[in-house]
Amino acid sequence: MNTIGEIGIKELASEYGTPLYVYDEQKLTANYHRLKSALDKYYTRNSIHFATKSNNNIEVLKSFKKAGSRVEASSPMEILIAEAAGFSGDDIFYNGNYESVEDFEFISSRSSMKINLDDISSFDRLFKATKELPERISFRINPGVGRGGFEGITTAGSDAKFGIPYEMAKHAYRKAKEAGVKRFGIHMMTGSNNLEPYYFAEAVDKLMMIAHDVFSELDIAPEFVNIGGGFGVPYYDEESELDVDLMARLISETFIERCQKYGFGSPELILEPGRYLIANAGYLISQVTGVKDSYRKFIGLDAGMGTIARPSLYGAFHRIKAYDNSNPEERVNICGQYCENSDILAKGISLPKLAEGDLVTILDAGAYCYVMASSYNSRPIPAEVMVSSGKHKLIRRRETFDDFMNLYNF
Amino acid sequence: MNTIGEIGIKELASEYGTPLYVYDEQKLTANYHRLKSALDKYYTRNSIHFATKSNNNIEVLKSFKKAGSRVEASSPMEILIAEAAGFSGDDIFYNGNYESVEDFEFISSRSSMKINLDDISSFDRLFKATKELPERISFRINPGVGRGGFEGITTAGSDAKFGIPYEMAKHAYRKAKEAGVKRFGIHMMTGSNNLEPYYFAEAVDKLMMIAHDVFSELDIAPEFVNIGGGFGVPYYDEESELDVDLMARLISETFIERCQKYGFGSPELILEPGRYLIANAGYLISQVTGVKDSYRKFIGLDAGMGTIARPSLYGAFHRIKAYDNSNPEERVNICGQYCENSDILAKGISLPKLAEGDLVTILDAGAYCYVMASSYNSRPIPAEVMVSSGKHKLIRRRETFDDFMNLYNF
Repeated sequence: MNTIGEIGIKELASEYGTPLYVYDEQKLTANYHRLKSALDKYYTRNSIHFATKSNNNIEVLKSFKKAGSRVEASSPMEILIAEAAGFSGDDIFYNGNYESVEDFEFISSRSSMKINLDDISSFDRLFKATKELPERISFRINPGVGRGGFEGITTAGSDAKFGIPYEMAKHAYRKAKEAGVKRFGIHMMTGSNNLEPYYFAEAVDKLMMIAHDVFSELDIAPEFVNIGGGFGVPYYDEESELDVDLMARLISETFIERCQKYGFGSPELILEPGRYLIANAGYLISQVTGVKDSYRKFIGLDAGMGTIARPSLYGAFHRIKAYDNSNPEERVNICGQYCENSDILAKGISLPKLAEGDLVTILDAGAYCYVMASSYNSRPIPAEVMVSSGKHKLIRRRETFDDFMNLYNF
Repeated sequence: MNTIGEIGIKELASEYGTPLYVYDEQKLTANYHRLKSALDKYYTRNSIHFATKSNNNIEVLKSFKKAGSRVEASSPMEILIAEAAGFSGDDIFYNGNYESVEDFEFISSRSSMKINLDDISSFDRLFKATKELPERISFRINPGVGRGGFEGITTAGSDAKFGIPYEMAKHAYRKAKEAGVKRFGIHMMTGSNNLEPYYFAEAVDKLMMIAHDVFSELDIAPEFVNIGGGFGVPYYDEESELDVDLMARLISETFIERCQKYGFGSPELILEPGRYLIANAGYLISQVTGVKDSYRKFIGLDAGMGTIARPSLYGAFHRIKAYDNSNPEERVNICGQYCENSDILAKGISLPKLAEGDLVTILDAGAYCYVMASSYNSRPIPAEVMVSSGKHKLIRRRETFDDFMNLYNF
């Protein structure tokens, strides 16, 4: 693999250094349009809010804005980042958990955002933070079951920290209504990185039944229904892409049918994908810094567990491509430069023979990669570059020793 | 738990905010002296090099320097940090892995450091980086077996990325000798967080046999023997402290006996502990931001997987203490504010009943905690404070939105 969006990988590495995150604007835009047009085909009152937590680069957010996307923020600082990218008001869906009263003081200052609350206790804290409650809120429901790519990203079920147990949802909405909230939405997200289209329709069905149960008794209707994200991408060659058209058709059919049945009218259908929109549009270019013939063969890269945490944190797999494919393949372990044996990016994979100085590209590095980077071993957090229409530009610079030292200025 | 080093935890939280890392200088100094005096009792030609990778705060390094410690650095930036704390030359033990030629250009500019190489290929890169080789080097040996608290921190054995397989060690030293290196050391570290004193003596024995095998044939003697770190601390109430005196006696006896047997004279015995010196001198103060009665009871903190990664990364356990112990205990899950179910700090532990706004203290947070922090969910990296002799001072400020934005200035 030697180009990203028509730009030579060697050119990028030599201009910006390695390790380097690179995003392909055409690809992220295409991801957005694929999802958006599939939804529009079956239910036009939909909104896609890109999940900033998956990638918080302001230029990435601007690209999504240009494509027509809205944005989801999961913390006060992500609201500021979304605003810096030009989003405001209704275009921001705020969705956090266990926020402090101080967090809610800030959040409630943006009362035209869609504000989602993770619990009844969150509502109580919002009410402590401001007597001027937002006109509209939603609650996140935990239906008691969940499914994700693996446990750490399964975001509902009895062990999940998220959402209100659905038995208590009625109580939460009643409390909000009695406190003067006028308009309501509802939210549920049960897991991340699912590739199975039927899964989402089932989730919609479940959420709509809960919505009916809760809302009918309180004589309110949902203004929006946020079914979360969780739309998966294939990290392995053997996996198939999520069939977005089928998924959109299934969820829309279920949604429309339930809205009619429950008399909900035509509420806004909201999705908040992160991974689906940006994972495969992101690449991590890294240089081979050492090749070791030990009990196994180790290829050492200048990217490691501090640069990209998913392999060490979840045992997650990312495909790695050699710049030069012409060499015969061999079985290798890929590691970084961090002084810890967790710093393994891949075990026993086949790659064309690599030598020091060679470049490799780690795929699907757009989501949950840069945002989880650390300065472990005092290795600096990498730079990010955007490629678009045959051009490339730096969109966040590499951390430096001066940045480290800057935290001692006070 | 309501004080750290005689300072009220409420006072610290109110002055510096939460989450907040706090280090107790008396405690870290006592840790150093306990280890140092145990070693001095049995073998005086010893050096302790504090592992910067466990805690890279410059004021923490200065405290260790004041106590008499030397320092270990694992990357070029850690060398700069050690220098900023006042260390230089021989007081710095450099010990990295899979460094690039560019890294070695920088490293070799500090030729009076002790420079440890992870492989023969590292030596080749050092030689590419500079024709003026350092006078003295050492190699890290992988004896083919290892033991750590768990797999991610087991740093030797056939699956470990570290060190030269001992069968190839002779070849490495010969190559270095023929290239003109005059003085040699040897290094081995097989695992981290071991609490068993006999383990270390066995490791020394193994390393000395390897040293004998390698060095006798090349007619050289080790100027130093670095047995690494790995000295454990109890993270659970049920665990006992490492018996440092016994450990020091056992390793010294083995070391002296082997030096005599192999005619090594009295080489410097080097230890590079991180965790043992700083883990229990560090505390993470956090505020309860939410209390949720879901399918389980969740206590949400303003510290989470971005603040302290060890629980989500390794499933590691850290004791958590409530500020107020007078309430009856209940079983709870402790989580942070991150939008991910990996963000669980403890499951099913008993704690005195907690309410929003209460403070808790996470113990043993001095090592491998701040250094692995990330800005995930755009939550800022916390501040660090040192308490000493009844006083407290900020030693690194909290990250701000301006710091995030600063990476867009280029």
